[in-house]
Amino acid sequence: MKVSFKFDSSSGFETTDKNRAVYISCSLVEGEKRYSPTELLLISMGSCTSDDVLSILKKMRQEVRSYSCEVDGLKKDDPPRVLKYANVTYRFYGNINPDNARKAIHLSLKKYCSVSIMLERGGVNVSYSMFINDDPYEERKNVEEISEAEGI
Amino acid sequence: MKVSFKFDSSSGFETTDKNRAVYISCSLVEGEKRYSPTELLLISMGSCTSDDVLSILKKMRQEVRSYSCEVDGLKKDDPPRVLKYANVTYRFYGNINPDNARKAIHLSLKKYCSVSIMLERGGVNVSYSMFINDDPYEERKNVEEISEAEGI
Repeated sequence: MKVSFKFDSSSGFETTDKNRAVYISCSLVEGEKRYSPTELLLISMGSCTSDDVLSILKKMRQEVRSYSCEVDGLKKDDPPRVLKYANVTYRFYGNINPDNARKAIHLSLKKYCSVSIMLERGGVNVSYSMFINDDPYEERKNVEEISEAEGI
Repeated sequence: MKVSFKFDSSSGFETTDKNRAVYISCSLVEGEKRYSPTELLLISMGSCTSDDVLSILKKMRQEVRSYSCEVDGLKKDDPPRVLKYANVTYRFYGNINPDNARKAIHLSLKKYCSVSIMLERGGVNVSYSMFINDDPYEERKNVEEISEAEGI
């Protein structure tokens, strides 16, 4: 697996594969607001676990009509400014059993989602929140607190 | 710091901030090739360290006329499919002293680049290669081998 990008003095960094362009901020370049490398990391983490969770829910024959996701994180003040925490908020809409949704999330965050697992092993406090049809079911539940009893 | 994206049944995941759109593959959606979450992670890592290195070289008054970067990585076969390794290839063009470039890279990978440092702490073998005007100066040098004597 290989990616490439180049520096452009007017825009920052841009991937060299034009068919799937990503633009990234560089502190040497002022101008249009792009995603920063750390924001891109949060998008990577959120999309990695979302892919797992939606695939597992499909296998469970749950009807997900729409889905969105937010990831928020906070960096340390001093270098290296690694993430103190990252929280994934899963927002499901449709006819979904909360226990199934929880089980899918736990399977992802504990077993399958390589990005979140690398970050957790690297010292980041990973947690999640879950909403179904805008009703809250979990609020910043820490991945470390997910026990064997919870469906893994 | 917060990012958000949504699932779209025809395209996969897309960020909800239209001014800086990123599209990501989802295994439930066939179609146009997007970056996968892990490819996005490699872009995040490469751009994080590239920002450091170009900023440090500017402070050192090195003349970088152009710059590109590649990041390659390999995932494990079994879940969680975390990265075995990630190698950053820095390609500088211009009037650049190799020792200064090496020092800038070492400062980034050992002290400043939060993304690569989180991944290394998480068990990923991080290394780098360096070219100046297409001449090779380092080839997959492991970050663990960078000693105090090398300018950190």
